[in-house]
Amino acid sequence: MPEPLIERGEVWLVGAGPGDPDLLTRKAEKLIAAASIIFYDALVGTTILDLADPGARLMPVGKRSGRHSRDQRTINELLVGAALTGGRVVRLKGGDPSIFGRSAEEIEALRARGIPVRICPGITAANAAAASAGISLTLRGQSRKLVLVTAHARAGEMLDLDWRALADPAATLAIYMGKAACRQVSDRLIAAGLPAATPAMVVENASLPDERIVRTTLALLDIAVASRITGGPALLLIGAAVNPVDLCLTDDNMRNSPMAMLSTIA
Amino acid sequence: MPEPLIERGEVWLVGAGPGDPDLLTRKAEKLIAAASIIFYDALVGTTILDLADPGARLMPVGKRSGRHSRDQRTINELLVGAALTGGRVVRLKGGDPSIFGRSAEEIEALRARGIPVRICPGITAANAAAASAGISLTLRGQSRKLVLVTAHARAGEMLDLDWRALADPAATLAIYMGKAACRQVSDRLIAAGLPAATPAMVVENASLPDERIVRTTLALLDIAVASRITGGPALLLIGAAVNPVDLCLTDDNMRNSPMAMLSTIA
Repeated sequence: MPEPLIERGEVWLVGAGPGDPDLLTRKAEKLIAAASIIFYDALVGTTILDLADPGARLMPVGKRSGRHSRDQRTINELLVGAALTGGRVVRLKGGDPSIFGRSAEEIEALRARGIPVRICPGITAANAAAASAGISLTLRGQSRKLVLVTAHARAGEMLDLDWRALADPAATLAIYMGKAACRQVSDRLIAAGLPAATPAMVVENASLPDERIVRTTLALLDIAVASRITGGPALLLIGAAVNPVDLCLTDDNMRNSPMAMLSTIA
Repeated sequence: MPEPLIERGEVWLVGAGPGDPDLLTRKAEKLIAAASIIFYDALVGTTILDLADPGARLMPVGKRSGRHSRDQRTINELLVGAALTGGRVVRLKGGDPSIFGRSAEEIEALRARGIPVRICPGITAANAAAASAGISLTLRGQSRKLVLVTAHARAGEMLDLDWRALADPAATLAIYMGKAACRQVSDRLIAAGLPAATPAMVVENASLPDERIVRTTLALLDIAVASRITGGPALLLIGAAVNPVDLCLTDDNMRNSPMAMLSTIA
């Protein structure tokens, strides 16, 4: 008999990718099918959970911005409990577990109890959004650095980021959870020296059927978000790589977007 | 009859991921199987190419550091030619096409000829290396920024990077193609203010059977590379997230590595 993919009492942190079940890795697909219990984030959709064994227990432990349905300590305890009682445990996280996924807390809690924990990577939103938009996040000799940050802040609080370091015209910025703070992001980056006309893009629900891609400029980011983005998770992309001029004319999203006009005004 | 996954005359830039065929996305697997012609990088292995249709043409167009077997213009022309003659074309790139993959040149060349080009994302080396090492690349409240840069420079040339911006103790740095320049990387980052004892890691052949993970510190990065890393592609990871102290004791790579001792000396 072949060795089981997940041992009893073992926990796998598995990246569910951006949402499209076809953007799961083959390994993630196998791990989801092999689990006896799956703890999943709010952003993991039913088409992915349908890949689980029919006998597996599916446990939502979703946290969404502003609505912490379970705090991190509770999630840690649930994972520890499931492993200690002999489960083949999958912790299914949107995107990649190592990027803004609070994996370190879970790894530490599990290892402190002697529970083996392993990680299966996933496609993170920045890569998925770039693929959907038909762009490269880096440009040889021009955009040579890709910076991923999260702009999540409590309501009314200012973001505590090093804006001067972020305002680098040779970088591409991928700002996770940046929808609510988009005005602050553009104001601060412009104040720190990044040109107002720097290409920018908002990608909502990357890879999903209701994906929406809005091309704009740094200065008009908040208008783009306010007028075109709805309730889904959104990624902000900022930098020269985001919108190479030559490519705009052949891009459906550009042609069909009212932001195209705004972009030319900026 | 269902619509074919790749139309005749269409080009897909497909991320092959870090090497392990199980880290392909399900979509990449389907696209590879649907292609009539595949242009592939040097780092794409035979276990991945075996997923192609037996009748498909497999064309190596590999460029490796210092050995540009075909220049970018030639690759662009090959892609254009294959599409214009009605091929179902896959351009298979190591990692993710949007990160240090020179995709922008290929997209531009194809669109200039009116050829439809689409992108399928892949797992990039930073995510794969973190998963193998059992770490998160971000730590809540501590490592809130992930920076991906390439440190490839011609022999004898200095790297032209903004070291002060990179020397951020609240960031995790993922340095692609940084093996040859590792001494310069650590010297410059330390000179720019990053502590010499900052945790660092070298991951060679991430996700492959001959994967090697060496934990060290920023100051000892060059010793780690010289003593333990061989000819494979390697990623440097630098920052507090790379080596949370609590986790080291339960990590096989840490236990088995002579660098463990060096780390404690630094």
